[in-house]
Amino acid sequence: MPATFTHRRRVEFADTDTAGVAHFTALFRYVEEAEHAFYRSLGGAAFEWHDRGLAGMPRVHASLDFLAPARYGDEVEVVLRVAEKRSRSLRYEAELARVEGEARTVLARGEMTVVYATRGHDEREWTAAPLPPTLVDGIEVAD
Amino acid sequence: MPATFTHRRRVEFADTDTAGVAHFTALFRYVEEAEHAFYRSLGGAAFEWHDRGLAGMPRVHASLDFLAPARYGDEVEVVLRVAEKRSRSLRYEAELARVEGEARTVLARGEMTVVYATRGHDEREWTAAPLPPTLVDGIEVAD
Amino acid sequence: MPATFTHRRRVEFADTDTAGVAHFTALFRYVEEAEHAFYRSLGGAAFEWHDRGLAGMPRVHASLDFLAPARYGDEVEVVLRVAEKRSRSLRYEAELARVEGEARTVLARGEMTVVYATRGHDEREWTAAPLPPTLVDGIEVAD
Amino acid sequence: MPATFTHRRRVEFADTDTAGVAHFTALFRYVEEAEHAFYRSLGGAAFEWHDRGLAGMPRVHASLDFLAPARYGDEVEVVLRVAEKRSRSLRYEAELARVEGEARTVLARGEMTVVYATRGHDEREWTAAPLPPTLVDGIEVAD
Repeated sequence: MPATFTHRRRVEFADTDTAGVAHFTALFRYVEEAEHAFYRSLGGAAFEWHDRGLAGMPRVHASLDFLAPARYGDEVEVVLRVAEKRSRSLRYEAELARVEGEARTVLARGEMTVVYATRGHDEREWTAAPLPPTLVDGIEVAD
Repeated sequence: MPATFTHRRRVEFADTDTAGVAHFTALFRYVEEAEHAFYRSLGGAAFEWHDRGLAGMPRVHASLDFLAPARYGDEVEVVLRVAEKRSRSLRYEAELARVEGEARTVLARGEMTVVYATRGHDEREWTAAPLPPTLVDGIEVAD
Repeated sequence: MPATFTHRRRVEFADTDTAGVAHFTALFRYVEEAEHAFYRSLGGAAFEWHDRGLAGMPRVHASLDFLAPARYGDEVEVVLRVAEKRSRSLRYEAELARVEGEARTVLARGEMTVVYATRGHDEREWTAAPLPPTLVDGIEVAD
Repeated sequence: MPATFTHRRRVEFADTDTAGVAHFTALFRYVEEAEHAFYRSLGGAAFEWHDRGLAGMPRVHASLDFLAPARYGDEVEVVLRVAEKRSRSLRYEAELARVEGEARTVLARGEMTVVYATRGHDEREWTAAPLPPTLVDGIEVAD
């Protein structure tokens, strides 16, 4: 049962800014993409349309410390580590690194807390709900 | 009754790319922002939540020719001109220019066609529908 | 001499996601936009092209707690408070709120630390440098 | 020698909007990502830092007709077809489709023209230049 998950993607042109590096919000997106790929790997989904309504995983906290820049074309590895699993939420520690052959340079480190939430199709407000079995059974807390 | 609409905004840092200019998708976004501000100026909205469902204005066509770059901090003016008004759709011509005091440099020119569409809250598919009175009555076709 | 700065902007369509709310990275962007507008209000700039090279303000930390969602068309107010001013960096506390007439709903609270940095035109790496006089003289730390 | 190139990627959460579909600018980004992956497959790059300056591939035209929506999690295939190869520019036809097993639904069709351009590190303006050998030799025009 996995307690960590690793996701790789490249820095795309649209992710960069005029300082010549990946914009800081791109790194936050990469962490979310890794989280969503994690659920997919378990047979779950970060967002689902059901007959009765929607289910999603909004963030209630996100933070990153930026240690080194990523540039266009860089291969970035996101490592997620499940730090806490509660009935309705998950807390992750995240590390992003640039990988180039054997070399690995840490770009950023941070945390993210997500809540499982649902709403009926004709409701505007999301309500926190217990994590579904796929995630409860599939996700372990890291040591 | 307006047949043209002018919208101004600044090139934000996140809009730029590593080539030192606004990414081309940012200019497409600026055109959409101008279109949405146009509806707002008429008392309408590009997207609405109703009791019975949603109403929106998806694009069926968008094109731009890029003539000069915009840079971080530039003031950009978007001029929309209603080229065609049909029962369910609107066709716009768009021009984007950098403005600096009296100087005006054209950045891009193009077209955009949007359709009025609705869907029930529990439906996934959008269906084209007649433009609402606010837009029918408020928008004129340019000469 | 200002120790706080307030910036307003609307949630644009491209800022939202399929959960029906502003994507969390949009709120991070709003904080950066507010910060950049702050420097502009002081006669400075978050990014500048000089004859000898570039000057910028990269983030070394960004965090937000998300308390309530923002939706398409909402008017969002970002309040920045200078929490710390060091020789090469600034630490801000940020609060984002939805404003509707008299009503004010807090959407998110967090922190952001930015560093003043420069690089020669033919250098790839940015180097931290003392804050320029415009910012040193123009910015006060909040009580 | 390839005259077409196919690229796949998933619709990420941040690519979607409150209408429940991928924002139209996301599809334009996917086309650019495919183009950049095409150059990478040939040993080239859409953006390079050289000792003497930078080389890039700005767009001078981009257009899409949107035929069907893409949603969160969809697998999208971008097919690029080289329609024209000139000394300093390339014109592509692009088709985006949602793929699900054997099923293939066309989402959008359009065109994109890109120019090869360079600038010295201390120059602000980009200048069109002859396509480099990697692209001249590696890219064929489709029948």
